[in-house]
Amino acid sequence: MQNFADRLLDAVAAKGNSVVVGLDPRLEMMPDFLKRGNIQDQAAAIITSFHKLILDVVAPLVPAVKLQSAFYEQYGLAGMAALQNTIDLARERNLVVIVDVKRNDISSTATAYANAFLGRAAYGTDLIPAFDADCITVSPYLGRDSLEPFVEVCSRYGRGIFILVKTSNPGSRDFQDEKLLRTGAPLYELVAEMVADLGQPLVGHRGYSSVGAVVGATFSAEASRLRELMPRNILLIPGYGAQGGTAQDVACCFDAQGLGAVVSSSRGITYPHRDPSITEDEFSRLVLNRTQDMIRDLSTVLPTAVGR
Amino acid sequence: MQNFADRLLDAVAAKGNSVVVGLDPRLEMMPDFLKRGNIQDQAAAIITSFHKLILDVVAPLVPAVKLQSAFYEQYGLAGMAALQNTIDLARERNLVVIVDVKRNDISSTATAYANAFLGRAAYGTDLIPAFDADCITVSPYLGRDSLEPFVEVCSRYGRGIFILVKTSNPGSRDFQDEKLLRTGAPLYELVAEMVADLGQPLVGHRGYSSVGAVVGATFSAEASRLRELMPRNILLIPGYGAQGGTAQDVACCFDAQGLGAVVSSSRGITYPHRDPSITEDEFSRLVLNRTQDMIRDLSTVLPTAVGR
Repeated sequence: MQNFADRLLDAVAAKGNSVVVGLDPRLEMMPDFLKRGNIQDQAAAIITSFHKLILDVVAPLVPAVKLQSAFYEQYGLAGMAALQNTIDLARERNLVVIVDVKRNDISSTATAYANAFLGRAAYGTDLIPAFDADCITVSPYLGRDSLEPFVEVCSRYGRGIFILVKTSNPGSRDFQDEKLLRTGAPLYELVAEMVADLGQPLVGHRGYSSVGAVVGATFSAEASRLRELMPRNILLIPGYGAQGGTAQDVACCFDAQGLGAVVSSSRGITYPHRDPSITEDEFSRLVLNRTQDMIRDLSTVLPTAVGR
Repeated sequence: MQNFADRLLDAVAAKGNSVVVGLDPRLEMMPDFLKRGNIQDQAAAIITSFHKLILDVVAPLVPAVKLQSAFYEQYGLAGMAALQNTIDLARERNLVVIVDVKRNDISSTATAYANAFLGRAAYGTDLIPAFDADCITVSPYLGRDSLEPFVEVCSRYGRGIFILVKTSNPGSRDFQDEKLLRTGAPLYELVAEMVADLGQPLVGHRGYSSVGAVVGATFSAEASRLRELMPRNILLIPGYGAQGGTAQDVACCFDAQGLGAVVSSSRGITYPHRDPSITEDEFSRLVLNRTQDMIRDLSTVLPTAVGR
């Protein structure tokens, strides 16, 4: 079975960029042309159609998409059906599928979460996947024994995780930045060291591990330090664009080949319109432009032949 | 609209105990009499029937149930349908419904999670709940601005949250117990102080807030200290029974009226059998016995007239 990190970085090399398009369904921001019939009854279909349009535009251009689970969950069973449909549509288009769930729990419960998104659940003797992602985000607050079940499932099924280390929001300072008495360094560095250690058994041919880290684009100095502490862990970088992170801010996260990090943008790409009465063609054109803009912007700080 | 903390503590006073029955669906541990037909096709029905049986036994006895989301999510859409069905069945029986999701994210994404479980999502001008819980668990790693959206939704809809402070697993030592340079105290105390502060606006008539804390039964000394730091926050205490926590370990979490904490047990109550060919009547009888045992056990360390 192929290592997740290799699969992601091969996709980055093939597409020549590290852009991750974030899919955050918000019915109120979607164009009118999608909204036929009763919105509640049609929610799963509307969200699925919206993402199919976007995927058709971005799949030839970018290596991966990131689905934000919260925005699906808010729509209940319809939202969860749309989550599953969108995962399927993205996989059919050979995109790497990251589901941003920020889950975690203790022991056998952590295993259940890992199985829900990366592994399989047992129905008698049948083992069947639920939400079949390539990779999810995981929260570290519960400690090492809560993270190990995810690493085990990643190893078994060739999947990946990104563990939250330093998040992009201002409130990440409240706990993550607290300096520890024992080390004098911030908490996020201790988390980073654990990510580096947990990831060692899952390093692939390209020198990176299937256990990665979430590091916000909004904290450039911290990102440089974290790049040093986690030399073999891929960084998933939110906070570019709408949250204020720039290409220059994330440049430090990449290696000399332009690998080692992927940068996500959601609203900036998938809600490019102001007028809800925009046509389908015009909407697709704007999504294309925004995606190309981000690829171009990131390329200004990276080598011309990424991953070669 | 009634305050969540008052609603929970009124239920505790009415039932005369603080037992929370944990519902963790694991098909492989359920009795054979539930498994008619193809297990995968019937998963939602099997899980729902299993929980209906348990709820019929425990609803007259205990104030609340806690659904562990991970075990539902592993069964995909069938599991999510079972989650929704189980929430409905518990509410119909006037149980307080805690859904243990340990979610969190930044800003508008945190709001989407809060709306998914405690509030409502917008479909055009209609506002509709997704998974309609009374209360959920929330992870603190992302800091104050990630917690505030949950508090806002709790305030608007009369709901509650329990924020992870000191979890019951051994790995909770890895980050939660790290002493901070600034204070010399462990990280979990800083989290506790934030919980106390966030909860102030939501204190009800009984003197407790709808913003509570998760504190493991397995760390009794830490629980005493946390009780002091969070005098107005209800503690949700996992780790009793199967994980090793005893009634004596959790006694320090209650006030002189026997209020201020609720104690959850899952496997110990809902999987009381060894033989999968157990009959329905025998299964119900064992669940009843285990529930009564736990109520009796906790009563040995509490006042005889809880909440009066």
